Amino acid sequence: MEEEDAVLGADVLATTDAWGVFTHGTKSLAGYLRRLRIGGMRPKGRPTVVAEGGAWGIVDGDSSLGMVASAFAMRLAMAKARQQGIAYVGVRNSCHFGAAGYYTWLAAREGLIGISMANDIPSVAAPGSRGAVLGSNPLSYAIPAGRHRPMLLDMSTATVAGGKVYAARTRGERIPGNWLIGGDGRPTTDPSGYPETGALMPAAGHKGYGISLLIETLSGVLTGASTTWRVGSWMWDDGRSPTGHGAAFLAIDPRVIAPSGDFERKVEALIDELHASPRADGVDRLLVPGEMEWEHFDRAMVQGIELPPDVVANLEKAASLSGVQFPCPAGGASAT
Amino acid sequence: MEEEDAVLGADVLATTDAWGVFTHGTKSLAGYLRRLRIGGMRPKGRPTVVAEGGAWGIVDGDSSLGMVASAFAMRLAMAKARQQGIAYVGVRNSCHFGAAGYYTWLAAREGLIGISMANDIPSVAAPGSRGAVLGSNPLSYAIPAGRHRPMLLDMSTATVAGGKVYAARTRGERIPGNWLIGGDGRPTTDPSGYPETGALMPAAGHKGYGISLLIETLSGVLTGASTTWRVGSWMWDDGRSPTGHGAAFLAIDPRVIAPSGDFERKVEALIDELHASPRADGVDRLLVPGEMEWEHFDRAMVQGIELPPDVVANLEKAASLSGVQFPCPAGGASAT
Repeated sequence: MEEEDAVLGADVLATTDAWGVFTHGTKSLAGYLRRLRIGGMRPKGRPTVVAEGGAWGIVDGDSSLGMVASAFAMRLAMAKARQQGIAYVGVRNSCHFGAAGYYTWLAAREGLIGISMANDIPSVAAPGSRGAVLGSNPLSYAIPAGRHRPMLLDMSTATVAGGKVYAARTRGERIPGNWLIGGDGRPTTDPSGYPETGALMPAAGHKGYGISLLIETLSGVLTGASTTWRVGSWMWDDGRSPTGHGAAFLAIDPRVIAPSGDFERKVEALIDELHASPRADGVDRLLVPGEMEWEHFDRAMVQGIELPPDVVANLEKAASLSGVQFPCPAGGASAT
Repeated sequence: MEEEDAVLGADVLATTDAWGVFTHGTKSLAGYLRRLRIGGMRPKGRPTVVAEGGAWGIVDGDSSLGMVASAFAMRLAMAKARQQGIAYVGVRNSCHFGAAGYYTWLAAREGLIGISMANDIPSVAAPGSRGAVLGSNPLSYAIPAGRHRPMLLDMSTATVAGGKVYAARTRGERIPGNWLIGGDGRPTTDPSGYPETGALMPAAGHKGYGISLLIETLSGVLTGASTTWRVGSWMWDDGRSPTGHGAAFLAIDPRVIAPSGDFERKVEALIDELHASPRADGVDRLLVPGEMEWEHFDRAMVQGIELPPDVVANLEKAASLSGVQFPCPAGGASAT
C-alpha cells in the first residue's frame, strides 16, 4: 500500500482501540490483511469522485481499504460543507470501514458536525422476520463542543453487538429477551444457536429497523453500492472478491450556518446542563455520547493501550501474515 | 389567519388523522386555537428566511402556527436540494409542528428524500438522570419508492409516548420496565405517579438519548431556537408566550445524485425483498415504515376517518372556542 494509506488505516484502528472500542480496532487487522493479499481488497486501490455537484458527491472506493475510501469521502464532504453549509458524499465499492466514529471525528476536530453510516451483510431481523434482513448498519455523529471533547455517538442499529451474544453462549449464560430471535423468528433468551441460526433484534424494534432502512438507502441504494444480502462478508467469505459495501458521510459547518460564532459555546452549555442534571439514586455522573471513550483515549495517550487477549491473538495472526515481529522489538510500540 | 395558512394547518392535522396518528392530528386543534387567541401563537405570523447559503437556510417562524413555519422550511430545503443535491433548513421561533412525517412526505411526494426533526420541552430522561432532560424529540424520514408508497418513519426518541403511560395509569395497569423512571430516577413498572413525577425512558437507552441530542443540536442549538427547559409547553403553559420550539428539515434529491433515474426502482426492489423475507411463526406480513399508516390513509380516503372519542371531545372544544357548529351541518365534513 501507499504509506499514506497504511498510516491512515493504522490511525483508524489504533484510535479505535484508544477509545476502548476493541471490537473494531486492530483486532480487525488480520482480516483486512488477508483480503489485501488475495484480492478482495486492492492495496493500490484509489478512491475517485465519480459524480459530484455543489453539496454532494459519489465516491467509488475502488475496493481499497475501507478506511481509505471513507476518510477521502468525509474530507470531500467537509470541503463542500465549508462552501455550502452541508454536504453528502456517498461511497460504493468500499469495504468494512471500522469504527464509524473515526470519520465523524475527522469533521468535529475541524469544527464541523460529522455524520457517518454504512451498510453491511444482514445480521439483524426486522420486526416479525424469521432471520436477518439488514446489516447492523452503524450510525455515528460527532459535534464539536468547545472546551469539551466532541459529543461522539457511534451505535449499531441492532440491540447489541453479535459478539455479546456469542460471549454469553461461550459462558453458558441466558441473554435478555430483546437481543436475539431464534430459528423460528421468535425472541429467545437462549444464545446457544447463535450465529448458526437466529438473528440480532433491531434496537427499540421498529425504530432501529426504520433507522437502519434509512442507512441502507443513503449508503447502499443512493450510492450504487451493494445492498442487503449482496454485500459480501469481509470476515467470513473467501476473501477473493470485493464486498461492495456502501457508506454515507454528511458534514455540516456551523461556522457557515451560525456565523455569530456561538455554536460551540452553546454546545458547551448544553453539555454542562446535562452534567448538572439531577441523578438517579446510585448514579455518580451523567454522560454525553463519547465521554467514556474520550476518557479511555486520554488514559491511553499517557499509559498506552491495554489490549484484551483476543486482540493480542489477532495481532499475532496479523504479524505472522505480514512477517513482522510481534510484540515489536525495543524502540517500537509494544502491547502492554 | 390567512386562508392559505389555515388550509395548510387543516391539511396537516387531517392527514395525520387519516394516517391513524390521532395523538398528533385534529386532537391538538383546540390547544393551537387557545394560543392563537391569546398571543402565544401569532395568526398573522410570517416565517422568513433570516440567513441562507447554497445548501442551507435559517427560518424565523415569527411564532406562527408550527405547521406554517415547518412547511415553509421544508419547501425551501427542497428547492435548494434540487440545485445542490442536499440542503438543511433550520427553524427557530416555531411551535409544536404536529406530525414530523407530514413534512417529510411533502418532500417524498415530489421525489425527494425528506428528513425532519424538532425539539420540545423535556419529558425524557438520560441514562441515569433522575428526571427529564430532553424532549421526546421526534425524527421522521420519507423515501420515495416508485409504485410503493414512500417509506415513512415518524418516531419519538422516547421508548413510548407519554399518552401510553397515562392510559395504563387510567386503567390501573403495570407497564413494561423500559418505559418510565419514577421519582427516584430508577425504572418502574408503576405508572401511577406519571406525569407528576418521573420521566419517560429514551428508546434503546443511550442510543435514543444520543439521537435525541443530535436532534436538539440541529433543531435547537444550530438554529438559535430555545433548547431543553427553555422551550415552552404548548399544551400546559398559559398560552400567552411563544414556546420557541426549534426544528430542522433536510431534503436530498436522488434525481440529482443518482441521475441514472433508477433510485426509486431500487427502493421498490428493496421493499419487495423485505416483503418476501421469511416470517416468524404466526406473523402474516413484514412491513416497512409507514405501511400501516398508508393503509389507514387509503381506507380513510374511501370511508372517512373514524375519530376516537378523545379526538371528538377535543374537536367539540375547538368548535366552541371558535364558534363553529360541530359536527358540521349537512354539506360539510362530519365525524363518523
